[in-house]
Amino acid sequence: MTHLYENIALIGIGLIGSSIARDIKAHGLASKVTISSRSAATLKRAEELELGDAYVADAAEAVRDADLVIVSVPVGASEAVARQIAGSLKPGATVTDVGSTKASVIAQMQPHMPENVHFIPGHPLAGTEHSGPDAGFTGLFVGRWCILTPVSGTDAGAVARLRDFWNSLGSKVEEMDPVHHDKVLAIVSHLPHIIAYNIVGTADDLETVTESEVIKYSASGFRDFTRLASSDPTMWRDVCLHNKDAILEMLARFSEDLAYLQRAIRWGDGEKLFDLFTRTRAIRRSIIEAGQDTAAPNFGRNGAAPELKAGE
Amino acid sequence: MTHLYENIALIGIGLIGSSIARDIKAHGLASKVTISSRSAATLKRAEELELGDAYVADAAEAVRDADLVIVSVPVGASEAVARQIAGSLKPGATVTDVGSTKASVIAQMQPHMPENVHFIPGHPLAGTEHSGPDAGFTGLFVGRWCILTPVSGTDAGAVARLRDFWNSLGSKVEEMDPVHHDKVLAIVSHLPHIIAYNIVGTADDLETVTESEVIKYSASGFRDFTRLASSDPTMWRDVCLHNKDAILEMLARFSEDLAYLQRAIRWGDGEKLFDLFTRTRAIRRSIIEAGQDTAAPNFGRNGAAPELKAGE
Repeated sequence: MTHLYENIALIGIGLIGSSIARDIKAHGLASKVTISSRSAATLKRAEELELGDAYVADAAEAVRDADLVIVSVPVGASEAVARQIAGSLKPGATVTDVGSTKASVIAQMQPHMPENVHFIPGHPLAGTEHSGPDAGFTGLFVGRWCILTPVSGTDAGAVARLRDFWNSLGSKVEEMDPVHHDKVLAIVSHLPHIIAYNIVGTADDLETVTESEVIKYSASGFRDFTRLASSDPTMWRDVCLHNKDAILEMLARFSEDLAYLQRAIRWGDGEKLFDLFTRTRAIRRSIIEAGQDTAAPNFGRNGAAPELKAGE
Repeated sequence: MTHLYENIALIGIGLIGSSIARDIKAHGLASKVTISSRSAATLKRAEELELGDAYVADAAEAVRDADLVIVSVPVGASEAVARQIAGSLKPGATVTDVGSTKASVIAQMQPHMPENVHFIPGHPLAGTEHSGPDAGFTGLFVGRWCILTPVSGTDAGAVARLRDFWNSLGSKVEEMDPVHHDKVLAIVSHLPHIIAYNIVGTADDLETVTESEVIKYSASGFRDFTRLASSDPTMWRDVCLHNKDAILEMLARFSEDLAYLQRAIRWGDGEKLFDLFTRTRAIRRSIIEAGQDTAAPNFGRNGAAPELKAGE
């Protein structure tokens, strides 16, 4: 059996990198997978988990024979990785990444890429609130979107092959302009995470309500935000720093809207509140119809409740 | 078998009222359940679902023989219900409610309650994003907190009996000062819902990102907010209008914190961002340890993904 890519190098082996590694292994998608991490502990853990065929601290060495290089590091580390690997890339190799911001990754990596490799930035919209090589799992990308943002002039065959690779992990692939990607992600992902981090921080700082009360009664709504707010801090710091303009625009709009809502609450304008609270219901329905979330109440968590014993 | 309350009247039969009705029936907790709703359609639906033993449009008539009256209406309708039922209450009866705000409900209902009934405000912290009599289910209250906020001078025996009733539905019961209740709920429930409604509204209003893109890529974080933002508009309008002071205080704190975070993003202060994003992880851990949320990644929704077929 021939593979889309015989040799694959994974630079960075956290939740995303290790899920890719597991899928490649589970479905025999390459002859050899070489794993590299700048953290010795992470690299050792990847080896213990038997995620690849070779484990190499030096990224330059890891990419030497690779037909596909997948960079899965916090976006702020993209330029350092590009510098490291640039001189060792195999002619004709494809270099991609999985970063949550695309314009910044292109600005960081593109200048270092040799003429004879295909640099195709990518972003699989998949993950959980957990991080590190142990958090990955086979099937993470199934049914999820992967957005490729090739720069103009990229070889169409190389893009098609990378699309096929993501399809083989179960992903649906879209192509998008990198700047538009960053705007879309600012609203569907970055703003929600920032807001979640912020509200959890606000709750943590209260004097009148204790932290133990917040925890005890969190199922009334608050707990939903704590999931996003437990995501990897390094990754999210870098997202904030590297998609600044789009995020600041979304934050400004959010704050304007919140001021309007706050004013409606202060002045008892029930009609304005009712209108907003009605309008937002339609989006939920569309998301469920699009298969992007479960229709089960409480995300299906109610099913986890222990059985009621009568009269207890 | 004797019951804690022989005759129970349920005024309002939405998600909460109908779940109580189902539990009473499932576990034989009363001799007779009388259901009342100001909406003829809802009352008819309750009868079709066989939620009680009698269905009465007039709340005053419904409460006439009741030992326990549970008012489950949007908090803004509390005073109207109190006025309606006040003259028909049975001496020695207990009147309680399930409203999400307590100081306002006490202000609305207490003045109308006769001397010879026990008025004990309550709030079961349970529910889903769905509403109406069809949304209720047996076991909704299992393992969930119910907060009672009795006013001073309330008969201890009557409070103990109401605690026993909630225990028999599977709830854990706490007593709290009503004003403190309203502050606690403002942060654990009201602010999260308002923020969720607001962010969904912001996304709906964008010009640069289409609604279909927001829906398509919503699994990156946004979808979590749409669940809370699909909650009952009437209920949440009333919550906003009836817990105004506590909500405005929490909103002010949230906005201050967000301005601080926004400034850190604008000026590229990675350290501040990293500190906040690290601090918030601990709260998630505590919530999971307290049994208030699932430890499964993505609230366990990943398990719902279809199986990956190799090479597809």
